[in-house]
Amino acid sequence: MLNIAVLGTGRIGRMHVDNIVAHPKAKLVGIFDINIAAAQEVASKHHVKQFQSINDVFASSEVDAVFIATSTATHADLIEHAVAANKAIFCEKPIDLSLDRVKSCEQKIKGTNIPIMLGFVRRFDKGHRAVRKSIEAGAIGDVHQVIITSRDPDIAPDAYIEVSGGIFRDMTIHDFDMARFVLGENITEVSATGSRLVNTPLMERCNDYDTVTIVMKTASGKQCIINNSRRAIYGYDQRVEAFGSKGMAISENHPMNNMRLYSENFTDQKPALMNFFIDRYGEAFNNEISIFVDAVEQGKQPEVGFEDGKQALILAEAASRSILENRVVRLDEI
Amino acid sequence: MLNIAVLGTGRIGRMHVDNIVAHPKAKLVGIFDINIAAAQEVASKHHVKQFQSINDVFASSEVDAVFIATSTATHADLIEHAVAANKAIFCEKPIDLSLDRVKSCEQKIKGTNIPIMLGFVRRFDKGHRAVRKSIEAGAIGDVHQVIITSRDPDIAPDAYIEVSGGIFRDMTIHDFDMARFVLGENITEVSATGSRLVNTPLMERCNDYDTVTIVMKTASGKQCIINNSRRAIYGYDQRVEAFGSKGMAISENHPMNNMRLYSENFTDQKPALMNFFIDRYGEAFNNEISIFVDAVEQGKQPEVGFEDGKQALILAEAASRSILENRVVRLDEI
Amino acid sequence: MLNIAVLGTGRIGRMHVDNIVAHPKAKLVGIFDINIAAAQEVASKHHVKQFQSINDVFASSEVDAVFIATSTATHADLIEHAVAANKAIFCEKPIDLSLDRVKSCEQKIKGTNIPIMLGFVRRFDKGHRAVRKSIEAGAIGDVHQVIITSRDPDIAPDAYIEVSGGIFRDMTIHDFDMARFVLGENITEVSATGSRLVNTPLMERCNDYDTVTIVMKTASGKQCIINNSRRAIYGYDQRVEAFGSKGMAISENHPMNNMRLYSENFTDQKPALMNFFIDRYGEAFNNEISIFVDAVEQGKQPEVGFEDGKQALILAEAASRSILENRVVRLDEI
Amino acid sequence: MLNIAVLGTGRIGRMHVDNIVAHPKAKLVGIFDINIAAAQEVASKHHVKQFQSINDVFASSEVDAVFIATSTATHADLIEHAVAANKAIFCEKPIDLSLDRVKSCEQKIKGTNIPIMLGFVRRFDKGHRAVRKSIEAGAIGDVHQVIITSRDPDIAPDAYIEVSGGIFRDMTIHDFDMARFVLGENITEVSATGSRLVNTPLMERCNDYDTVTIVMKTASGKQCIINNSRRAIYGYDQRVEAFGSKGMAISENHPMNNMRLYSENFTDQKPALMNFFIDRYGEAFNNEISIFVDAVEQGKQPEVGFEDGKQALILAEAASRSILENRVVRLDEI
Repeated sequence: MLNIAVLGTGRIGRMHVDNIVAHPKAKLVGIFDINIAAAQEVASKHHVKQFQSINDVFASSEVDAVFIATSTATHADLIEHAVAANKAIFCEKPIDLSLDRVKSCEQKIKGTNIPIMLGFVRRFDKGHRAVRKSIEAGAIGDVHQVIITSRDPDIAPDAYIEVSGGIFRDMTIHDFDMARFVLGENITEVSATGSRLVNTPLMERCNDYDTVTIVMKTASGKQCIINNSRRAIYGYDQRVEAFGSKGMAISENHPMNNMRLYSENFTDQKPALMNFFIDRYGEAFNNEISIFVDAVEQGKQPEVGFEDGKQALILAEAASRSILENRVVRLDEI
Repeated sequence: MLNIAVLGTGRIGRMHVDNIVAHPKAKLVGIFDINIAAAQEVASKHHVKQFQSINDVFASSEVDAVFIATSTATHADLIEHAVAANKAIFCEKPIDLSLDRVKSCEQKIKGTNIPIMLGFVRRFDKGHRAVRKSIEAGAIGDVHQVIITSRDPDIAPDAYIEVSGGIFRDMTIHDFDMARFVLGENITEVSATGSRLVNTPLMERCNDYDTVTIVMKTASGKQCIINNSRRAIYGYDQRVEAFGSKGMAISENHPMNNMRLYSENFTDQKPALMNFFIDRYGEAFNNEISIFVDAVEQGKQPEVGFEDGKQALILAEAASRSILENRVVRLDEI
Repeated sequence: MLNIAVLGTGRIGRMHVDNIVAHPKAKLVGIFDINIAAAQEVASKHHVKQFQSINDVFASSEVDAVFIATSTATHADLIEHAVAANKAIFCEKPIDLSLDRVKSCEQKIKGTNIPIMLGFVRRFDKGHRAVRKSIEAGAIGDVHQVIITSRDPDIAPDAYIEVSGGIFRDMTIHDFDMARFVLGENITEVSATGSRLVNTPLMERCNDYDTVTIVMKTASGKQCIINNSRRAIYGYDQRVEAFGSKGMAISENHPMNNMRLYSENFTDQKPALMNFFIDRYGEAFNNEISIFVDAVEQGKQPEVGFEDGKQALILAEAASRSILENRVVRLDEI
Repeated sequence: MLNIAVLGTGRIGRMHVDNIVAHPKAKLVGIFDINIAAAQEVASKHHVKQFQSINDVFASSEVDAVFIATSTATHADLIEHAVAANKAIFCEKPIDLSLDRVKSCEQKIKGTNIPIMLGFVRRFDKGHRAVRKSIEAGAIGDVHQVIITSRDPDIAPDAYIEVSGGIFRDMTIHDFDMARFVLGENITEVSATGSRLVNTPLMERCNDYDTVTIVMKTASGKQCIINNSRRAIYGYDQRVEAFGSKGMAISENHPMNNMRLYSENFTDQKPALMNFFIDRYGEAFNNEISIFVDAVEQGKQPEVGFEDGKQALILAEAASRSILENRVVRLDEI
């Protein structure tokens, strides 16, 4: 049983709390949030301690591990702090929007054996993971093309978009990690195209794009295509396709329910797709707790960690530059 | 926030515990099991009280509602006890294997306003429920035929089967309730056919059947077919189809994951279907807690209760008699 | 190359003409129809002979085989005639509505080696056939339950229904043959239930049913369920499911096209299902020509023939009696 | 009834013959092929004239229209010849491998009213066409991204590849036309990436690619991605997806049959997908005859003609140049 404290009790923090309390090998021992009322509510429901400060958490001998679900700007600091306090770390992505800050954090925690897991939750989706597993098992032979479709159900509020760091750092970051997960070979070239079709004025103001296509290539010629949109009216579109010399593996979308209606002029399913990540990746969020708990118990690094967070950010940088300079960008330029 | 005590910490009791602690409007306040070690483990993980006796539970002012997840033979007693103690009741199905005992319990609790919900969990499956909703919305017009396919992934151990009360009371009971839920009209006739194809010696010894087809009819001529098997090697097969004058609604099976592999000679999904009820109806088990909590908070009876438990048992009796006498049995004979 | 004359150039006759002219191993040499204008049109388009009488067809040395696509009442006569003329026979189902007439025809042609194929076209549907093939290959082990769903897109005109011989002889006849094809064991018991839900006055007038469920059983306990409706508003519903000790094979419906639309509130396909038999079984109608041509070339009986036509009619008789007498009918009673 | 002569009785020519003879509004009047034996076989089966020369065909007053299904190198000459002879033209794609020859042909036939249809058969696939129709009906709003997946079941023989004109002119040409069909706006930019993963030595020798990704953009920012492979071991992969402001339309692959097997460890369909174009687009090949016949009867140009053939070739040129120069190519450069 791993004793866990959760930092941050916003939407995603509470979701982790629910998953931890229901997990057979994890035990919630306390929570912390700068929003005292929110934290109190959670502590009361679960009969657990409400820590008074971050320092109290890190000082507590009851706490084996922390879940960092606070705002992005605090992640790198909290990782450094937790390493110093010898607590295992689960941190929501991204580590930071700045590649420089990620690199300085990397320097600071260099050499640690503390397990650090990054919340690239999609790796733990049963379907996407089965794509990866089928590749490892040789079921599709050599990978030739990977196609990742990833569209949000709706564009975030203006205020969010304005500080998001741009579509590549904020949204595609998950797909860059998925590309690395599925391809199994280092990407060497990135070429990106962007359009402003969902909210043109906002995108122009932010010098950002809401509709992008990214084509990537590895040294051996494997190709990967990511297509993103900030708004898919039919729901959260999440598909991963790997095509290879011996077959193809596709992780398809999840319908809201499996009821199908056959009427005079059509058949339908209502509504179309599962909405957003907490529903769509609900099971994956559970699975990642198991992965984390097992890694900590065995004293090893979880399968997705700090380096993966950094590499995804590097791909985001390359994509940004490709659009800016309207050319293919080599990864070794970043 | 509804304060709940869970009675019974076996497989299904623990599942309810996990769902209650993760539920935003429910709070686990204590648990009881005659297996003290099992109960202790649950109490410790969730920082809650381990009641020393059933009487303690019913006497506790902290407890608003009880979840009865103990063995079948205790259900009717505990329902009577809980009504006397003025606790809201969620009870796993069946109320009892004996229709007489159900009727005597009914007499005893007659007139109570205490909310009593019976765990016919399938009503809360999104897909099956969408079938019912589409009927209520008029989307398929008048119902003409309902087809319920319900097959377990594997036959239970001999010891279980021997005391199960027979396939109709043990397994089809869920489907009888589903038939009533979807048809929306009282069943008047039952005709059943049984075969011994999965485990012939066991079935002969128990005078039971492992493969059955039940055809039912309402006064207006609506037809309902249930087909059951004790063993579907490919997984837990759970489908509900409603066919009517204006269309058809089908709640399809749930694959294990949405990954599809396309190989030289075939496409496949591995493994086939979700296994057994805790996985397949995982979301429905969560939904039923919401239904229960909302009913209790609003002081009304939940949508599925004692009477539904009794009616399903009556259909089971009719089916048994139909096989025994090789004829169509009218419900008014029971 | 097999030289074929087609008798009857109504809807189904013309379809056979089109399939024959496009078939690599068949050659259309002439046609006959009592409707001279209809026949002339076909003859002219295909540059073939328009026979002046049935006798001319049977007397022609150019003709190796005949396709009987005339009205039902003429089938048995034409079969007898063709056998006498030594022409291979493809005959549309049914042989006759009367079991007595079928038996007298049987007596008359007894001992012939002339290939006689009956147009139970569904056996040649790739999907349904794959169900049978998977059983033969042992892929689903011993068959336990077969479920045949067969619903017409709309009820035929009153005039047609009135002389149809009733739903079992007219419509279910195909499903009875499918049951025999898939079960692979003789049926011993039939139990049928009927309702009048689609067109109540017409059904009452004809003493017929538009919505029926038939449950059949073999000596070893295999079960088969057929459910029929005269009107499925969403199209021609044709499904075959075989469930066995090692798996399940399902031949699913065919959508009109494979385009799927994902909108804000639903996904859909428009229209729902392929309409009626000429579209739905278009490929099967082609396949049956290959089966017929191959059998004739090899001088052997096609896989579905006179006896199959007779057996399907016997099942129809049993189902009629079951409804009439509200009881299970044994086949050996017929 | 349109009187048609078919030029070329190779695989695709014979297929057109079969479709024409079975078509209610077309009549085959004769055929021609330089392979006299092949032509004779077809003429005999269908009781039609075997023309002795191309000139005889064009001189025949019986012939209203010609189907050009001869080798690519003869297409432009035959188009010019047919225009001069005043025969309606259906011509298999491509017009020619050389854009210059296409332009000179264009000059020669300028001003003609003769209906000329080009065999971009995929436009007449029910699924792909339904994508286009749903866009025209406004069902997906403004188009944002189009994704065309097009993979052959196997690479053609070396001898074919060597003279094919390269993957863009030979294979992607269909997808370029589909892109234009679905986007509904002129493409302004093309960017292509190629790999040699299926048959590396052959591709190096031919300076060709077997695995390509093409990204295209219109003036308003609509994006289109084509991904091709010369070998998809699971069959002929043909999908078209259009994503827009109000929804998404996907034309999915066609399985070989609709039988699904559920076994202990997997579900499957065997084999995976329909093989190659004659099967997969069988219905579309029929539909294009209807489109052609209707256009000729109404004396108007069919919906896909000479200009479409030329535009697809221009896109192929742009893609070739993009790979060669590793940059985005504007269409106005070609």
